[in-house]
Amino acid sequence: MKGLTTLKDLPVSKIQEIIDTALLFKKGELKADYSGKKMALLFFENSTRTEYSFCTAMLNLGISPIYFNDRGSSIAKGETLYDTVKTFESFGIDGVVIRHSKDEYFRDLENIQIPIFNGGDGCSNHPTQTLLDLMTIYEEFGRFEGLKVTFIGDIAHSRVAHGNNEIMRRLGMETYISGPEQFADVTAPYISFEKAIEISDVINLLRIQFERHTGKLDMTKEEYFERFGMTKKREAQMKDNAIIIHPAPVNRGIEIADDMVEGKKSRILKQINNGVYIRMAVISMVLEGKL
Amino acid sequence: MKGLTTLKDLPVSKIQEIIDTALLFKKGELKADYSGKKMALLFFENSTRTEYSFCTAMLNLGISPIYFNDRGSSIAKGETLYDTVKTFESFGIDGVVIRHSKDEYFRDLENIQIPIFNGGDGCSNHPTQTLLDLMTIYEEFGRFEGLKVTFIGDIAHSRVAHGNNEIMRRLGMETYISGPEQFADVTAPYISFEKAIEISDVINLLRIQFERHTGKLDMTKEEYFERFGMTKKREAQMKDNAIIIHPAPVNRGIEIADDMVEGKKSRILKQINNGVYIRMAVISMVLEGKL
Amino acid sequence: MKGLTTLKDLPVSKIQEIIDTALLFKKGELKADYSGKKMALLFFENSTRTEYSFCTAMLNLGISPIYFNDRGSSIAKGETLYDTVKTFESFGIDGVVIRHSKDEYFRDLENIQIPIFNGGDGCSNHPTQTLLDLMTIYEEFGRFEGLKVTFIGDIAHSRVAHGNNEIMRRLGMETYISGPEQFADVTAPYISFEKAIEISDVINLLRIQFERHTGKLDMTKEEYFERFGMTKKREAQMKDNAIIIHPAPVNRGIEIADDMVEGKKSRILKQINNGVYIRMAVISMVLEGKL
Repeated sequence: MKGLTTLKDLPVSKIQEIIDTALLFKKGELKADYSGKKMALLFFENSTRTEYSFCTAMLNLGISPIYFNDRGSSIAKGETLYDTVKTFESFGIDGVVIRHSKDEYFRDLENIQIPIFNGGDGCSNHPTQTLLDLMTIYEEFGRFEGLKVTFIGDIAHSRVAHGNNEIMRRLGMETYISGPEQFADVTAPYISFEKAIEISDVINLLRIQFERHTGKLDMTKEEYFERFGMTKKREAQMKDNAIIIHPAPVNRGIEIADDMVEGKKSRILKQINNGVYIRMAVISMVLEGKL
Repeated sequence: MKGLTTLKDLPVSKIQEIIDTALLFKKGELKADYSGKKMALLFFENSTRTEYSFCTAMLNLGISPIYFNDRGSSIAKGETLYDTVKTFESFGIDGVVIRHSKDEYFRDLENIQIPIFNGGDGCSNHPTQTLLDLMTIYEEFGRFEGLKVTFIGDIAHSRVAHGNNEIMRRLGMETYISGPEQFADVTAPYISFEKAIEISDVINLLRIQFERHTGKLDMTKEEYFERFGMTKKREAQMKDNAIIIHPAPVNRGIEIADDMVEGKKSRILKQINNGVYIRMAVISMVLEGKL
Repeated sequence: MKGLTTLKDLPVSKIQEIIDTALLFKKGELKADYSGKKMALLFFENSTRTEYSFCTAMLNLGISPIYFNDRGSSIAKGETLYDTVKTFESFGIDGVVIRHSKDEYFRDLENIQIPIFNGGDGCSNHPTQTLLDLMTIYEEFGRFEGLKVTFIGDIAHSRVAHGNNEIMRRLGMETYISGPEQFADVTAPYISFEKAIEISDVINLLRIQFERHTGKLDMTKEEYFERFGMTKKREAQMKDNAIIIHPAPVNRGIEIADDMVEGKKSRILKQINNGVYIRMAVISMVLEGKL
């Protein structure tokens, strides 16, 4: 399959090449013009950041985005994902970006010939999110080897945590889990929140979806913030050059204090900005046959 | 009225000219650039193929599509179709593509001056679908005269069957109806399914909408497939160079076996591809004053 | 804040400059090409005219519109307007057009650095609508000073009436209210409908939203039209060169007779056309630092 659906099979050298390409786009040292090319945005789940970041990346590269509205489409008539994607392929377009709630939906698309860019599948992969997190870390520290990252929040349901953890370990980073113990899984060792604050170079906050956890998470939003929210006081206890990242959207006042979202250690807006360059890098490398 | 709303009044020479133009676009022997022009996609009914095929055709011609979302628009405030289209005309754009559930909705739009491209009206017309079917047949046989076509499925509710039948007869083709007898109407003579398989050059499958026919169609999906579905066995009984077409979306395992959608005699994906060239031909001929 | 959110603080000289720029775009005497720039359409309320007029204006200027679909976005996950706009800013795009039901929503966006174009907020501002009304009046009379304007309809809930009234008075126009007395507020003096017809240079009809006023407006649609609708007879009683404007969508047969929407004194379609030029003027002046 062409495109980028998962990072699992990608060597670390290729990950580094994507990040380097994205940094060149960011610095304006690399330009690319794919005028005349067309790619469709097939989003079957809610998204702001990923959909419009891909859209902006396409426009930056001269590619025309085709906005697909699944609510008004043949999917409502019961068409399969495969048939929908095959239809867009048959139009003669140059690629599709897909977000879908089914884990590894792309296994059903092995007969598709045009590039598929995964914008998130179920609780499994979100490769461009992982790449933009890595780019943000690399920009900060200039390396991955030996950095300590702790995931705080709903690990079990997070494609971000699972995707990031796998590749971060391959890149030589030490990964940990903290926050509510009932969220912990086998992804990485569990450490106390105090310890996480103390030792981490990167605090990777995850979105808490309270609506999903009624009954399971035995605390209120206020209690969550009290126990695990990022506050000025906790920020002060972090290492001097440590940073906070979050895939967003942020629950202000739950995972992180309102006034810290754009604070000194937060790289949340930078991540969003980097996401555009990562997607430009991924798209152009696929079109150039380098990925 | 400018544009293309129905094929009923179009001489066969003009039909042939559209197909020839589409074939030139497909072969890359004709190019057109209408950069700066803008057309709106006004779809008031579900669609994947027609809407995004028109969209791709516009982009191929350098035309900017304006994506109209009827669910968020003034239509929700009770505005008439005429007033909505008149609004887009007043913006100074160069044309509109419309799909609407009302039969011959374009009768209400006689005072509109910009080109209207009909993307399907009620159970009546779908001119670009008919044209792409004809293009696919013409590419295969190099002629229309004397070819035998049989429609299988829900003739009564099918704008495809009605639209195709009228023009196919004018082009010298013999048309028949087969499948469930309760779907037959006066469109064309009814023949048995066995006979249809045996004599047809083109089997034109139609989508069965089971949700519409509860009570009327006295058979299950399994029985339908058993009696009227296209299977490998039936394919083997067709003429050597006969083909299968379908307007899609296909109900896999009902109208046609799953593994035959992309099979030897199926032209279903080719139809989708041809649809883009037909729409490029229609749009450019209208803009050039040739249609 | 950059962009245009309200006309309240704008000197009349600047209003005139916008109108003059729009007229130059309309006459084709001014051209601008902002190819490569991207702006997002963030509409959280129903709209046809404003959203697609801004979209057409962007395309006319070479700017790529980014169509945001709020129903499928992170807003559904509870994200604030500020965080959504900050996300688009972080993508590196060049501006956003926003319509939102909250009065003066832009007060929450003071930390946004990219231009914000207000497409309507609650019952308060709709600056480009006011500007297109003024442009239409200026094209007709060549001046504002001394002209008499009467608003007919639901003043209290109309951002059009409030926005227009404030700036029209500053421009030296005399403003009045007429129609159902229960709609009158302190905006301007109330005069009888007969008097309004007799003295006005401009009749500014407003949309009546019957669904909102059950119980409050003690008359049927038929009675409203009978008492306050614009008819041929009333048109004949207007001054020779007086005109009728309406922000649309029009309720045909309620605020105005069906056959008068495109009649001699109506400038309703001209307003829609002028709206595109006003938005081109506003966008280009903001990008040039002139607004």
